[in-house]
Amino acid sequence: MNIVDGLKWRYATKHFDVTKKLNKDQIEYLKQAVNYIPSSYGLQPYKVLIVEDGEIRKRLSEAAYGQPAITEASQLFIFVNYTEYGTEKVDEFLKLGAETNNYPVEKTENYKNMINGVISSLSKVQLSNWTAKQAYIGLGALICAASEQQIDICPMEGFDKEKFDEILGLKERNLTSACIGAVGYRSPEDTNQFLKKVRKPMEELFETI
Amino acid sequence: MNIVDGLKWRYATKHFDVTKKLNKDQIEYLKQAVNYIPSSYGLQPYKVLIVEDGEIRKRLSEAAYGQPAITEASQLFIFVNYTEYGTEKVDEFLKLGAETNNYPVEKTENYKNMINGVISSLSKVQLSNWTAKQAYIGLGALICAASEQQIDICPMEGFDKEKFDEILGLKERNLTSACIGAVGYRSPEDTNQFLKKVRKPMEELFETI
Repeated sequence: MNIVDGLKWRYATKHFDVTKKLNKDQIEYLKQAVNYIPSSYGLQPYKVLIVEDGEIRKRLSEAAYGQPAITEASQLFIFVNYTEYGTEKVDEFLKLGAETNNYPVEKTENYKNMINGVISSLSKVQLSNWTAKQAYIGLGALICAASEQQIDICPMEGFDKEKFDEILGLKERNLTSACIGAVGYRSPEDTNQFLKKVRKPMEELFETI
Repeated sequence: MNIVDGLKWRYATKHFDVTKKLNKDQIEYLKQAVNYIPSSYGLQPYKVLIVEDGEIRKRLSEAAYGQPAITEASQLFIFVNYTEYGTEKVDEFLKLGAETNNYPVEKTENYKNMINGVISSLSKVQLSNWTAKQAYIGLGALICAASEQQIDICPMEGFDKEKFDEILGLKERNLTSACIGAVGYRSPEDTNQFLKKVRKPMEELFETI
């Protein structure tokens, strides 16, 4: 299924079929899509926690106003973004680039200074919003990849982020929860699947100049 | 090409072939992908300006540190997000939903109050970051759709947003520029296409719990 057909098929799954789980290849495919989607400078300034554990999900569910997708989905892909981004992370990234493409890392000195200059100019809140935005590109890729494969997905950002951070032990790792993609298979009883998709007229969303 | 193969094929195109333009069907396909990608509550709190005009792009290029993609690409998809989001926009969205699915809009009273409650609790900066994040999901979809179709795309956020807003007349419309997808065809002379993709090891990006 191409992306557009996949996205037309997709809907915001509220209830998942708890008896149906994704297989390893499907999970691997989704991970690859998120891995290969680009991010600012290529830094990938976030992580993705794939939560399967039932006990943790029960606790997360309470911090997400009891939304059933949290416990019913096959997996939760929780995007967590960095709240601090030190020069050592940029060094690591440039080293990886130099190794991958076989050039001396010293060649990237000016580029390094440029990236560090941009990052150090951000306030703590700005930095966290910037890294979160990169995670949202990743969420977009996850939604596309799942829909292409006819895997149901419910993107979520309506949850208590502080409580999520606490349950997942994120604060001490300079990470914070950004958004979730709950993936799995729709329950036949989820009536949302029968609703028509609601979208603005194209001429309202787009303007060509 | 599936999404993962498309994303592997894609690279951050720095130089486009100015003689090659997307056709109408390709542009329509990219628009559909952005249109069908979900957003918070389904509100789509952003617009996408598709910029073709050479004069405007020359001015934008100056506000984007002369990055060649701005003038060389076939089209620029500029995502611009709302900086204000009044209750009338929520009303409009709920009316569209009621019309599309043929139920009385009065049925959505509680839902309306919930959405308005969440939005009104945001500061101006928080609101703008929230609407921008939705635009970034759209950028993720644009990147996936272009890559699937083997259309080159360079996502960009390194530009002077204030100058962009001024050139595009966004401020008076309560909009601000978030991010860009420059689409077209790679120049054979763009040496970036020969570099290997640099990505974190999968076990660093993902953690399964």
